[in-house]
Amino acid sequence: MKTLIQHVQLVTMNATRDVFPDGYLIIQDTRIVALGAMENLTEELSHFDKVIDGEQGILMPGMINTHTHIGMVPFRSLGDDVPDRLRRFLFPLEQHMTKELAYHSGKYAIAEMQLAGVTSFMDMYYFEDELAKATAEMGSRGILGETIIDFPTCDAQEPHGGLAYAENYIPKWLGNPLITPAIAPHAPNTNSQEALEKTTMLAEKYDVPVSLHVAEMDYEVQYFMDKYGLTPVGYLHKIGFLSPRVIAAHCIFLTDDDIELLKITGTKVAHCIGANTKSAKGVARIQDLLAAGVPVGLGTDGPSSGNTLDLFTQMKLFANFHKTTLKDRGAFPAVEIVALATNGGAEVLGLSKEVGSLEVGKQADVVLVETKSVNMFPNFDPYAVLVYSGNASNVEMVYINGRCVVEKKQLVQQSLSSLQQNLQAEMSEFKKRAMELAD
Amino acid sequence: MKTLIQHVQLVTMNATRDVFPDGYLIIQDTRIVALGAMENLTEELSHFDKVIDGEQGILMPGMINTHTHIGMVPFRSLGDDVPDRLRRFLFPLEQHMTKELAYHSGKYAIAEMQLAGVTSFMDMYYFEDELAKATAEMGSRGILGETIIDFPTCDAQEPHGGLAYAENYIPKWLGNPLITPAIAPHAPNTNSQEALEKTTMLAEKYDVPVSLHVAEMDYEVQYFMDKYGLTPVGYLHKIGFLSPRVIAAHCIFLTDDDIELLKITGTKVAHCIGANTKSAKGVARIQDLLAAGVPVGLGTDGPSSGNTLDLFTQMKLFANFHKTTLKDRGAFPAVEIVALATNGGAEVLGLSKEVGSLEVGKQADVVLVETKSVNMFPNFDPYAVLVYSGNASNVEMVYINGRCVVEKKQLVQQSLSSLQQNLQAEMSEFKKRAMELAD
Repeated sequence: MKTLIQHVQLVTMNATRDVFPDGYLIIQDTRIVALGAMENLTEELSHFDKVIDGEQGILMPGMINTHTHIGMVPFRSLGDDVPDRLRRFLFPLEQHMTKELAYHSGKYAIAEMQLAGVTSFMDMYYFEDELAKATAEMGSRGILGETIIDFPTCDAQEPHGGLAYAENYIPKWLGNPLITPAIAPHAPNTNSQEALEKTTMLAEKYDVPVSLHVAEMDYEVQYFMDKYGLTPVGYLHKIGFLSPRVIAAHCIFLTDDDIELLKITGTKVAHCIGANTKSAKGVARIQDLLAAGVPVGLGTDGPSSGNTLDLFTQMKLFANFHKTTLKDRGAFPAVEIVALATNGGAEVLGLSKEVGSLEVGKQADVVLVETKSVNMFPNFDPYAVLVYSGNASNVEMVYINGRCVVEKKQLVQQSLSSLQQNLQAEMSEFKKRAMELAD
Repeated sequence: MKTLIQHVQLVTMNATRDVFPDGYLIIQDTRIVALGAMENLTEELSHFDKVIDGEQGILMPGMINTHTHIGMVPFRSLGDDVPDRLRRFLFPLEQHMTKELAYHSGKYAIAEMQLAGVTSFMDMYYFEDELAKATAEMGSRGILGETIIDFPTCDAQEPHGGLAYAENYIPKWLGNPLITPAIAPHAPNTNSQEALEKTTMLAEKYDVPVSLHVAEMDYEVQYFMDKYGLTPVGYLHKIGFLSPRVIAAHCIFLTDDDIELLKITGTKVAHCIGANTKSAKGVARIQDLLAAGVPVGLGTDGPSSGNTLDLFTQMKLFANFHKTTLKDRGAFPAVEIVALATNGGAEVLGLSKEVGSLEVGKQADVVLVETKSVNMFPNFDPYAVLVYSGNASNVEMVYINGRCVVEKKQLVQQSLSSLQQNLQAEMSEFKKRAMELAD
């Protein structure tokens, strides 16, 4: 199968940030096999199985969501403005999460990401085996980390039962071209040192990624300071937890020493500006992390925190928050923000060799953003258009691993209304409990 | 003409914030004549000229944009990340603004607002007579303020030439049901005291609103401190400029005394969180202004600053920025943010008796937001859905003054592609100059 996408503004996000104002890109099977300026396209159109006219839309690499919880769609728009929602709403309601609900939520969340041009994501939740199935069925690229936490959960009767779940779940998915199983201890303060050490052993045994929330909560920082006289990052380093396989989500409260520890251990950071600021926690020191050489990607966080699963929202919030925090309108020009949503995410998820830019030989994770909608004109600078003007509804077409999953702003293999009906049907008990808690 | 909109989640934004989960609303000619729960709808369907099934979408009051520059669409995505862009890009390029370009930009900008559910706006730009024509043709509710500034402009050869322009322009539009002419001195530091005094006299003569940028720039604050030992607000009060007819845009840098002066003079504030934070200026003290009783509405600022003209973007940025600045996730719950975008805007623009809520007797400025798109499910709380999940593309249908301007997400009386083609054709010279400046 050989597909030509022509007449696009090609934003490669390669090392030299090449942009072809009137460009083309060729996909063969799962990979990008050619790209460039239209004037250099010599192959005859009859050679292609499919020829797509991009109508001067922006063709960019698939966006990469480095931190989310795809099982949590049922929580969206519930108790958004409630202080300490995690312990008041989320933990209690999660007792009523079921395997089926997680699965249908996962499919729905992946649909939302695909429709928004997100082609790869890192998940952290329960019932990850179900969520891996959902991801495989939807055809997205996912790293799916089973949660470990120090109390019984919806998918484990014992504290830290996620370890046993993971031991069973991980081997099933090793070697899958799109799915990477992973382990996700909830946070340093919600796991024993022993559980964290077991996590590391399990991750090393199967050579899989690890992700956890780090330095997200003020009470988390206080806990480690009181107990050990250490920061959360300092504690994780002391117990030997940090490594290049670790994706630390949030990292809002970092000292200079913390940044140095993340750097020397090769730890990566998933930055969730939307969730962090909606919950009034603060703005992570991303400029300092990048200056130190720590890889950073963007994350939406879960649909009850973020609240949408698109990176357009995150890019816009990133721009305004970091410029304001740094008191510098010139900080993080739009190109650097698009880089975080693509290259940066790929680096954080360890996928740089495969995705994150449009280059010959890379996997064909490709997004066409139309520029015909009212908000997308004029277009003096495609990066500015993506960051400051665009939203998820401007995504016209999406390829993942060479397969078209979104065309004309609609899912190709799935019906969104069916996905929604299935989720809604599965939600009835959850919804009842949620309404009780909200009263 | 009598229209029934039924089966909607009716978010009235009335004083008691009534919401009807399955509601209806009836429009007769230009006004809302009935609304309530579906079970109380007794009139037969055959009595209506048109019956619309809202399919459980959210029906809300038209949103109100209290500060924008509709002539500035040609600047969008140009030099977004450049320090001091106002003096480096905007002022020089505005010398090449023409009457025709302003008119076509205005029509395009109004289309963008209508498609996003913005039914009323306050504009401040040049060639306001053309922009008033554009507004009338598009059928939006607009207050259009001609700019006064202390140098020659695209529509006036003399400094402060806007005064003469306004003297000619204002009487033409007095009494129009949708258009309110106004005067808009650019800022206190870009006008002489004499020009500001003449502005007040002209505004009083015709009883029209006044708007200006206030306390937006750090160098503006410094200027008044150096010259008079006063804040910009203190200076405006001293020269007798502040009054209930004044809409002060931005007001980022305010002292406690400034807030008191705005309160006692009845001055109103147009808050542009997106533009203020993208340009790294800061977050205005909105909680303190509201606590003092100063009316506050939301504004997008111009399309080169904001960069989109929808209030969904502003509501989301408002939530995250104010919660984070106040270090309180519970600050400004979603209902209060929707109130700023509707009631608040109406109060700022002096339109509270006519619009800003869905109530019997008010003008029918009504917006249907669909909840079928992937980002809009589930819906535990319509305010949270609007603020945290929604975007402009979810606007399904818009009525202004009883007239349907958007249906099925498309303009009804206009073709968007024609509006864009007209604007693009008019932009060729501007674009050339813009590219020269950008190099």
